[in-house]
Amino acid sequence: MIVDHRTGDDAGVFRLDEETALVQTVDFFTPVVDDPESYGRIAAANALSDVYAMGGRPLTALSIAAFPDRDFPPEWAAAIVRGGALVLREAGCALLGGHTIRDPEVKFGYAVTGLVDPRRLMTNAGGEPGQVLVLTKPLGTGIVATALKAGQADPATVDAATRSMSVLNRTASEVALESGVRGATDVTGFGLAGHAAGLARESHVTLEIHARELPLLPQALALGPGHQAGGLKANRLAFEPLVERDGEIPAALELLLYDPQTSGGLLLLVPEGAVRPLLAGLPGARAIGRALPPGPKPLIVQP
Amino acid sequence: MIVDHRTGDDAGVFRLDEETALVQTVDFFTPVVDDPESYGRIAAANALSDVYAMGGRPLTALSIAAFPDRDFPPEWAAAIVRGGALVLREAGCALLGGHTIRDPEVKFGYAVTGLVDPRRLMTNAGGEPGQVLVLTKPLGTGIVATALKAGQADPATVDAATRSMSVLNRTASEVALESGVRGATDVTGFGLAGHAAGLARESHVTLEIHARELPLLPQALALGPGHQAGGLKANRLAFEPLVERDGEIPAALELLLYDPQTSGGLLLLVPEGAVRPLLAGLPGARAIGRALPPGPKPLIVQP
Repeated sequence: MIVDHRTGDDAGVFRLDEETALVQTVDFFTPVVDDPESYGRIAAANALSDVYAMGGRPLTALSIAAFPDRDFPPEWAAAIVRGGALVLREAGCALLGGHTIRDPEVKFGYAVTGLVDPRRLMTNAGGEPGQVLVLTKPLGTGIVATALKAGQADPATVDAATRSMSVLNRTASEVALESGVRGATDVTGFGLAGHAAGLARESHVTLEIHARELPLLPQALALGPGHQAGGLKANRLAFEPLVERDGEIPAALELLLYDPQTSGGLLLLVPEGAVRPLLAGLPGARAIGRALPPGPKPLIVQP
Repeated sequence: MIVDHRTGDDAGVFRLDEETALVQTVDFFTPVVDDPESYGRIAAANALSDVYAMGGRPLTALSIAAFPDRDFPPEWAAAIVRGGALVLREAGCALLGGHTIRDPEVKFGYAVTGLVDPRRLMTNAGGEPGQVLVLTKPLGTGIVATALKAGQADPATVDAATRSMSVLNRTASEVALESGVRGATDVTGFGLAGHAAGLARESHVTLEIHARELPLLPQALALGPGHQAGGLKANRLAFEPLVERDGEIPAALELLLYDPQTSGGLLLLVPEGAVRPLLAGLPGARAIGRALPPGPKPLIVQP
């Protein structure tokens, strides 16, 4: 075993030989959007992301499903499964099977196995001071999902969030590997602050984040103050003590640091010389800060 | 991909090279016993069984857990996880990580990955007429769990069922492989009749089962008529049409054909010359019938 759950990384890694290791992860969750096929797509992109975050190539998947007995049309189940299968196919990942249970609350996701070259593994521990911090997808999926549940998100906002959550982190992973990135994670349930803190801790750096540079989903700033998920509040409680504020951060923007993401982007520590070609190869990605030598707190946020 | 969910086999198989394939499976369920550590042990033995049923060696596992927010002491969660870890260790299987959600109803299980030599794979399709049908664990876990929920199972009965469900199918798998077995499955949710029917169909045989030879858990016959799980009734509806009765089967015994099993035994089609050494190497196993050329129904049950 090279990496397991104790390192805070997104997936476990098990060495088969010098050049090959298995990278494995499991994730499933309740619906974040109303459209069942989109939910399936997002669940697949999200589960695959953990493999991409470590520089792996997804190989196989097992589905994990909980579908209600009543008030749940069979065509919804079919649409969820179909959406997931489409994204798995896009990723070149074979569906080997799965397990479905009856449960009052819908849940869906996958256990995914990938292959990775252990010499090119990306982990929380692989970053160094002086590198540039890059985020490859906009923040705000938790806020938009919460607003949607309250009936307060307009269709265009939901569409933009759905599209972003359905995008595979495959290209981001491939471009990062080509750019020599070895310090990386993906931004999911713990939000940017939580995952950045893990990256900072394991890489023995302090991460300076420029709040004004954060890529955001449309309407995320406007909806945030009124639509904070329970996870956002929990993340803020847990991770705010790890943040040194270097100036006045607008309150609505600060929320986005803690918003739990579903199928969020990769958070990469990029060697300085590789930043420009990497950003050119990843249109949605933004440089949002840099790695400093370790200071008193793992995160510094500037306006 | 060599085997996927469409063949009715217990796990998916993905070829890495000529000598190595991944065998993968996922299973999780609500508690079947009251003791949390035993529940964890059973969940692990059950998930690993799918790998053993195909002749594989478990390598890695990811846990899948749903624990309630309230009325659920943290030490119960710890005991479930510990029980599972003990059995994984016994199997030489590394725990790489997992995913836990909050959910009103407890669920626990694993996604397991093993390695298998594709030339020695055991599948539903690998049996032949003339071979002897062997079952390696006693039937009745569904009946005992149902009686336990009704407060009608005495401690000795529950203990016997718990012990049986906690036993790894590892030795059964290894002895079967050494005996040249290639047609095999494990007996789980669809009961003996359901899994035997899958073995018969894929191996193009009819399976003759001698009801009087079935190994049974203590009290299973006595408790069965009063404690039929929903799954037992569903299995009977689904699989009774596949059964030809060759004589009068006692009603209480007939129920055991349909009882859904948790962490049940392996159901093996054993070359005739290998039966005696195989049974000598597996003390709990019983010869329960034989494979005939395919007839009008996949299963014939004799008294």
